[in-house]
Amino acid sequence: MTHLECARCGARADASKIANLCPACSGPYLVRYDLERMRTSTPKSVLYGRQASLWRYRELLPVQDHENIVSLGEPNTPLYEVPVLGDKLGMHRLSVKDEGLLPTGSFKARGAAVGVTRAGELGVTTIALPTAGNAGAAWAAYGARAGIGVVVAMPASTPDVIQRETASYGARVYLVDGSISDAGALIKQACAEHGWYDASTLKEPYRIEGKKTMGFELAEQQRWELPDVIVYPTGGGVGLIGMWKAFEELRALGWIGQKRPRFIAVQAAGCAPIVKAFHAEKEESEAWPDPTTFAAGLRVPKPLGDFLVLRILRESSGTAIDVSDERTRDMMRLAGTTEGLCLCPEGAAGFEGAYQLRQMGFIGEHEDVVVFNTGSGLKYAESLQGLPPVHLERGQAIPRIERQLEEPFDGHRPLVVEDDRLRVAPDEE
Amino acid sequence: MTHLECARCGARADASKIANLCPACSGPYLVRYDLERMRTSTPKSVLYGRQASLWRYRELLPVQDHENIVSLGEPNTPLYEVPVLGDKLGMHRLSVKDEGLLPTGSFKARGAAVGVTRAGELGVTTIALPTAGNAGAAWAAYGARAGIGVVVAMPASTPDVIQRETASYGARVYLVDGSISDAGALIKQACAEHGWYDASTLKEPYRIEGKKTMGFELAEQQRWELPDVIVYPTGGGVGLIGMWKAFEELRALGWIGQKRPRFIAVQAAGCAPIVKAFHAEKEESEAWPDPTTFAAGLRVPKPLGDFLVLRILRESSGTAIDVSDERTRDMMRLAGTTEGLCLCPEGAAGFEGAYQLRQMGFIGEHEDVVVFNTGSGLKYAESLQGLPPVHLERGQAIPRIERQLEEPFDGHRPLVVEDDRLRVAPDEE
Repeated sequence: MTHLECARCGARADASKIANLCPACSGPYLVRYDLERMRTSTPKSVLYGRQASLWRYRELLPVQDHENIVSLGEPNTPLYEVPVLGDKLGMHRLSVKDEGLLPTGSFKARGAAVGVTRAGELGVTTIALPTAGNAGAAWAAYGARAGIGVVVAMPASTPDVIQRETASYGARVYLVDGSISDAGALIKQACAEHGWYDASTLKEPYRIEGKKTMGFELAEQQRWELPDVIVYPTGGGVGLIGMWKAFEELRALGWIGQKRPRFIAVQAAGCAPIVKAFHAEKEESEAWPDPTTFAAGLRVPKPLGDFLVLRILRESSGTAIDVSDERTRDMMRLAGTTEGLCLCPEGAAGFEGAYQLRQMGFIGEHEDVVVFNTGSGLKYAESLQGLPPVHLERGQAIPRIERQLEEPFDGHRPLVVEDDRLRVAPDEE
Repeated sequence: MTHLECARCGARADASKIANLCPACSGPYLVRYDLERMRTSTPKSVLYGRQASLWRYRELLPVQDHENIVSLGEPNTPLYEVPVLGDKLGMHRLSVKDEGLLPTGSFKARGAAVGVTRAGELGVTTIALPTAGNAGAAWAAYGARAGIGVVVAMPASTPDVIQRETASYGARVYLVDGSISDAGALIKQACAEHGWYDASTLKEPYRIEGKKTMGFELAEQQRWELPDVIVYPTGGGVGLIGMWKAFEELRALGWIGQKRPRFIAVQAAGCAPIVKAFHAEKEESEAWPDPTTFAAGLRVPKPLGDFLVLRILRESSGTAIDVSDERTRDMMRLAGTTEGLCLCPEGAAGFEGAYQLRQMGFIGEHEDVVVFNTGSGLKYAESLQGLPPVHLERGQAIPRIERQLEEPFDGHRPLVVEDDRLRVAPDEE
């Protein structure tokens, strides 16, 4: 790590001191490395034999001393094909990268692992942040592990499991009537008054460094060949910015070639500021007045990094699309029954967005498509879809399974149970 | 894989056909390999460069053709030290192996991955099993991935998240008044009537082969040096049997030395058949009349493999201990606030059992102790412990953190917030 650089105006800052937003233009800082020097000194073979964790990419992470790493044992998350689901959705090379297998059950663990590590190195004793849910849980866990106090403000509508989880790590949890923006205003005020470290999205430059490891892992798992399309459910959009930054860095190092995936941002119809700004050809989003979706992670009315997300979507020839909660629920069910995936609503929205873009022809049948499932469906237990359990009376036996149709999925062939086996129903005559 | 062998009477069976219990003595079958031949043909260097997944141990897994593997991308689960918690519990080399990071959020994924893979190879079209909760969820997920129908019977008291999760994979879920034993009787009857494959614990020989990979991973992560003590929360006990089998196999291959860890089985005071039998010097357990504990996975009144578990505890100079639900709840909180761990109740019971044995002197201060957290605390959301979130009224600011004592933990120094930071309280004068 050499310095920080404002993503908006290019101003430089010292990385050895606490930095929030650029004082000149209020833009977010990005961490810069001496990639020129590393191009010769750091071949990708340095990775060989290292642990399958995000820390294997240590040369491209901002940690000063590896003794300081705060870790809950982050494994590399699996990337694998989902052929049955892909067949139903008309995509023959559809894969999921399942971020639900990280500590605290979401991709937010990446940002928190690196962010808390750096906060510790900078001497921070209390971290405060607003959250749509999972970031709060992640920072609370890594803060506990590091012995750093954590204060979290989240919408009162945040799923119950996530509220409880965050509190279980000893964090102070405040519930706010309103959105993550309202929570953010309270955190800003509290940080000013109490001298806490403001770890809001992009207000500190290290969370994104953790999230970019999604891009490193994806590249390495694909043997340094990027996919054609990356579908990313977009709330704050930091994961998307992080992956784009990761690919730029890998390209500068010569670890990957020139191929650039199209990035697709998927949002919920009830909170789609990026989609609106993208199609209106704006450079920034407008605050969405009343974010409404059960995909809690997508309830971000005005992402601080909107201008970067929009730039990436355009530069990569990607797009943005919003999907309804109803369709997202259907997709959770479809992915569960066809592939055994326990998607979070955000991840399911991603698959639904991909499906709609496939229908429109924006995604080709044989393109290599990777959808990020950003967290475990377990965190949204009340939203998991399935046939209700049957309570057997005493003396009652388990019946033979009758042919039973699952609800049809939007013109797709429904799932049926036939010969005691779950199958895709034959085409109607 | 060469054949199956009855763990009770030693009778052999053909591994290429469906086998449940030994027809001669009703004992469970164990899978056998030609370890003699492998000792020369298979050095541990075969693992080098392979993916960090349970399938890296493929030479010691019963899969016939690797094309048939049913996987949801099982990462190797992290093993790491928990020094702050260890300090509070008086153990200076205390580690956790966190099985909550597997697909479906528990170690049951290991058994289901291998079990469903083998069921598919054997031509099974419908799997049925009783479960205390997590096994049902895991088999449902892997069944969905394989296109095999799954029918699950579980106690009506199984945590809500797990019920919903299991149903979300398309499995048929039946709720039973009573314990997993009552559920097991119904499944047995249904399998006889409908021709389904009975995947009850140890009634098919492949689940244990998946679970033994916990032992392989532990050994490899410790650089082929086993720990002094392994603490395992014990319901059916298959994980413990699996690890013991794993170490026997590694020893036969010459991959590890002669050091044998002491195995400790931890159960809940409300369902402790193994503990009772162990201390009564019995060879088998008696059915526990009314299993009562919030640690759902420990509600197994009469494990089929009890005689093996008891034998392993004795041969390894280990022991068995039961702990109260109240102490288990305290431990969930302590692990969350000190280490950022989201333990399931079973895992927390394991830490509490270790702590009590340390107090008694059975575990030494400087011994290398590994506790298995068998699943994610997210699956027991209603049991997560923490300060309740504070709902802010509109216009209310986030207050400065006051000094606030967490409840003291059994004579240990309580946690306090001091200078906005979570600390272990100083010793009382």
